[in-house]
Amino acid sequence: MRVRKKPGAMEALLAFDTVYIDAPMMHRGAWQQVFGNDAPIYAEFGGGKGSFIIEMAKRHPDVNFIMVDVITEVMLKAAEKAAKANVPNLRLIKLDLAFLDQVFAPDELTRIYLNFSDPWPKKRHYKRRLTYRDFLMKYHEVLKPDGWIYLKTDNQLLFEFSLNEFADCDMKMRAISLDLHSNPIPWNVMTEYEQKFSEMGMPIYRVEAQFRL
Amino acid sequence: MRVRKKPGAMEALLAFDTVYIDAPMMHRGAWQQVFGNDAPIYAEFGGGKGSFIIEMAKRHPDVNFIMVDVITEVMLKAAEKAAKANVPNLRLIKLDLAFLDQVFAPDELTRIYLNFSDPWPKKRHYKRRLTYRDFLMKYHEVLKPDGWIYLKTDNQLLFEFSLNEFADCDMKMRAISLDLHSNPIPWNVMTEYEQKFSEMGMPIYRVEAQFRL
Repeated sequence: MRVRKKPGAMEALLAFDTVYIDAPMMHRGAWQQVFGNDAPIYAEFGGGKGSFIIEMAKRHPDVNFIMVDVITEVMLKAAEKAAKANVPNLRLIKLDLAFLDQVFAPDELTRIYLNFSDPWPKKRHYKRRLTYRDFLMKYHEVLKPDGWIYLKTDNQLLFEFSLNEFADCDMKMRAISLDLHSNPIPWNVMTEYEQKFSEMGMPIYRVEAQFRL
Repeated sequence: MRVRKKPGAMEALLAFDTVYIDAPMMHRGAWQQVFGNDAPIYAEFGGGKGSFIIEMAKRHPDVNFIMVDVITEVMLKAAEKAAKANVPNLRLIKLDLAFLDQVFAPDELTRIYLNFSDPWPKKRHYKRRLTYRDFLMKYHEVLKPDGWIYLKTDNQLLFEFSLNEFADCDMKMRAISLDLHSNPIPWNVMTEYEQKFSEMGMPIYRVEAQFRL
């Protein structure tokens, strides 16, 4: 997503101190203390304006959610919405995924959502795609052994790339869908992108993947 | 494929006794003797009019090929073409795959091709699809441990179904393609269907799958 720089966005974001966590590395290995319970933690990497994870947090009060993104201006929108929605089981953090292991301890996450990640369509940029094997190895470190990665995208090339990266990394897969909305799926929470693209009649791809022990 | 019954088709097929093997069960465990060499055996299940496997046999004289089908009239076309092509490394057999293990001994096949198999699109017919798990278990019996199943189809639902069956059976996958012809692939031999559908601009799906030891 291309975003206009907004002066004062970081200050505004910091003001949402009930949902936005400014120094996430301080909570490494102790995220359940942040939430004040021992519920599992589901994280969304690249949460954007947050509509997916806020709705998930509403629907699943028994789960702790953490939205990760890097763009301050977009996170500010998510923080505003989250504060209004009053979801005590959601936190937002700003993090470059290269430093994922400095923010989460091994086995600290139970699920990772990758929704409509940047496809980086140019071949020479494939290492930036969030399902590139180096990223998967980072996810492996922080994900519980029985944890899953849930991926959705409208981008055929990113989906094909992701299936092959999962397969090459010898991951288990399940629930592969080449057209998610061909059947009604009441459990599915749509992202902004998903709403837009599926209304345009474009297929949404989905897969669940898990590391082998 | 719907085919008009043709009187005398079986007799005509039997006349092609250099390519058509009438009593395949007799060669169980001894197929290399049929070919008179110890080259690996690649089989195509549902070979139709044979253009794929005949071209493969021409390109790969160091491999033995067996085309399997059930429709006499279609196999007759394949036999005619195969006889003209003069490919000593190809045989045709008529076989219901339910009886696969009566025709091939364990580990007798090195590769299985499934090209544009009948998608059986109605949900209640899923057990007839050639990638349904019960069929996969039969393939597992006759395929060498390091053997692969190579699948191509134009049918999105069959492809999605196949990926999920492979995944649920804990098979390894590789080279997953959601649009095979988006890049030039000189090694690819096109079937009649593939030629037709890709000319119409429809995507061709492809995957390679292997059982775990």
